[in-house]
Amino acid sequence: MENLLKQIKFIQEIDRLKLILRRSLICGGERRENSAEHSWHLAVMAITLAEHANEEVDVLRVVKMVLIHDIVEIDAGDTFVYDTKGYEDKEEREQKAADRLFGILPDEQTKEFMALWHEFEARDTADAKFANALDRTIPLLHNYMAEGGSWKTHNVNRAMVDGLSGMIVDGSKTIAKAVEELIDDAVAKGYLAE
Amino acid sequence: MENLLKQIKFIQEIDRLKLILRRSLICGGERRENSAEHSWHLAVMAITLAEHANEEVDVLRVVKMVLIHDIVEIDAGDTFVYDTKGYEDKEEREQKAADRLFGILPDEQTKEFMALWHEFEARDTADAKFANALDRTIPLLHNYMAEGGSWKTHNVNRAMVDGLSGMIVDGSKTIAKAVEELIDDAVAKGYLAE
Repeated sequence: MENLLKQIKFIQEIDRLKLILRRSLICGGERRENSAEHSWHLAVMAITLAEHANEEVDVLRVVKMVLIHDIVEIDAGDTFVYDTKGYEDKEEREQKAADRLFGILPDEQTKEFMALWHEFEARDTADAKFANALDRTIPLLHNYMAEGGSWKTHNVNRAMVDGLSGMIVDGSKTIAKAVEELIDDAVAKGYLAE
Repeated sequence: MENLLKQIKFIQEIDRLKLILRRSLICGGERRENSAEHSWHLAVMAITLAEHANEEVDVLRVVKMVLIHDIVEIDAGDTFVYDTKGYEDKEEREQKAADRLFGILPDEQTKEFMALWHEFEARDTADAKFANALDRTIPLLHNYMAEGGSWKTHNVNRAMVDGLSGMIVDGSKTIAKAVEELIDDAVAKGYLAE
């Protein structure tokens, strides 16, 4: 019961991830997306797209990673992927957040979740590479559906998008190829600046 | 590539789950919760609380079930758990929705997701019983945190809550015990009517 009470406290605490807003817009522009629903979307991608990973992945581990990868934002906030200034102290802010938030759990789970989060951030393993590929793919699908979305509002151009797509190739060459075609089409349609 | 294009279409289509509003309030009452962020919360519960299941569960299967269990609401809408009228044609509406939505996927995945969703709804297996227990537990945690929340706005009393908690016992006696104490406390504090 002692474990359970800690776990329930964690479950209640992470409710706040639903208040963390990302730059992406949902459903063709209706409103900004929050990090909790974003994490759900990635988890569904993981169970749907696992066959396309470059190397065989442990689907449960990938799902766990994407479910918890943004929890640190509850304390550290979301850092926009093109915000170079925000990236300066991102690591320190997020480690502190991870210590507090994962620290609510029983010791063994604190260690497990911390390790999964570090693995996701380090992008060295097949599971983490695939999880990161999904995380980089979904905003492109969103912006395409929103006919530009946060690309337009934040003056993002094709070179900036291409600069991040290396992470997709690392996780899945097949997905990267499909995304490249989508980007070509987005430029042709005027959703994304050349 | 043919599989991938179908899967990407599915990933884009399910974005609309973020627009389906539930009766539960997030973060102590800030706003209503949507079904996508709810599904994320359940998936994190599954990976965190699996040790408390009555029987040993396959965590990946439980996670898959909770990730997709509400996708039918995109077409069929959310049916409030105390809405007896809405439950009359719920099954028919949801099956039609499942046919269309899971039908976007490649055949093998259509079958897999459909079977998982039926299994969740039927509550006959250990995995489904545990998944349903989580789904019944989280609104109680939310309403407690919101000092009444949708219990108050929808005139729910203790007998109504107790009437649904059998599903929690079926999946996890340990969680059911913790929830019972929470309910006692909610009544004592005036969050829930006697």
